[in-house]
Amino acid sequence: MRVMGIDCGSEYTGYGVVDHGQGQELACIAAGAIRLKTKDAMTLKLQKIFDDLSAIMTAHRPEIVAIEEVFYAANVKSALKLGQVRGVAMLAAASAGLQVAEYSPLSIKSAVAGYGRAEKQQVQQMVMRLLRLPDPPEPADTADALAVAICHIHTAATLKRYEPATR
Amino acid sequence: MRVMGIDCGSEYTGYGVVDHGQGQELACIAAGAIRLKTKDAMTLKLQKIFDDLSAIMTAHRPEIVAIEEVFYAANVKSALKLGQVRGVAMLAAASAGLQVAEYSPLSIKSAVAGYGRAEKQQVQQMVMRLLRLPDPPEPADTADALAVAICHIHTAATLKRYEPATR
Repeated sequence: MRVMGIDCGSEYTGYGVVDHGQGQELACIAAGAIRLKTKDAMTLKLQKIFDDLSAIMTAHRPEIVAIEEVFYAANVKSALKLGQVRGVAMLAAASAGLQVAEYSPLSIKSAVAGYGRAEKQQVQQMVMRLLRLPDPPEPADTADALAVAICHIHTAATLKRYEPATR
Repeated sequence: MRVMGIDCGSEYTGYGVVDHGQGQELACIAAGAIRLKTKDAMTLKLQKIFDDLSAIMTAHRPEIVAIEEVFYAANVKSALKLGQVRGVAMLAAASAGLQVAEYSPLSIKSAVAGYGRAEKQQVQQMVMRLLRLPDPPEPADTADALAVAICHIHTAATLKRYEPATR
């Protein structure tokens, strides 16, 4: 299974493509962050997010996109800005024919760090270990994107284990 | 000048294309509202908004898109939802090579009703009169979209009148 995680932000949008092989090992296929220039018009920023994410989907062909659910923002203005980026990221997935799975921040942190209130640094460290990366992913948005992809892989594996019993 | 106004909403997204002829008269070229089904997945909804708005831009070839600035939402969750729709609407404009002009609710109401605190019904009535429509546009989102297009036309005309003096 190949999953693309996306962590939306109004400055950095992280992405990470993770493979889950038959031997249960995880592998990082691609990861990084799209940086938006503060001075650019919002339309330009949104176009860049859409184009860059679409290009990554075309290049690495994930089977599904995983994204963090958002419940909190500093205020309505920042929630709207974040929503705009999120909408365009979800549209990029839909345009590539991919479904989007959403996970709460608590589920994501629990999945990678075993603890729902883990700090940003703990998430970066655990993502580095789980994917056997030489360094913690930077910026933190890249680690968060990889974390949501790992969360989806864990959740899918758990559902699969329960499947035979519930049939 | 031909302007497309868009009024984003998480249930209805209104649109209205307005022409401003040489004789200063306004004409409604197209107007309506895209309705999103509550039960549909967000990715499907966003795809529909993008596809429908893009089709209207291709069919009626506006020169610019006008959209309402949003400062208020009931809560962060509804601001995020609205932001998602707004981001996709702005992306549709950018993909069609169009710039997006933003206007405050106060400017829009003042432009059509001469009063920044006009009620929804007053806006519908004034839009009907200004565009010589047989009935008030329904739903209110359609009237709001036409109102933001009219607001852009008024603002552009005012800027043009001031231009020779400031040169």
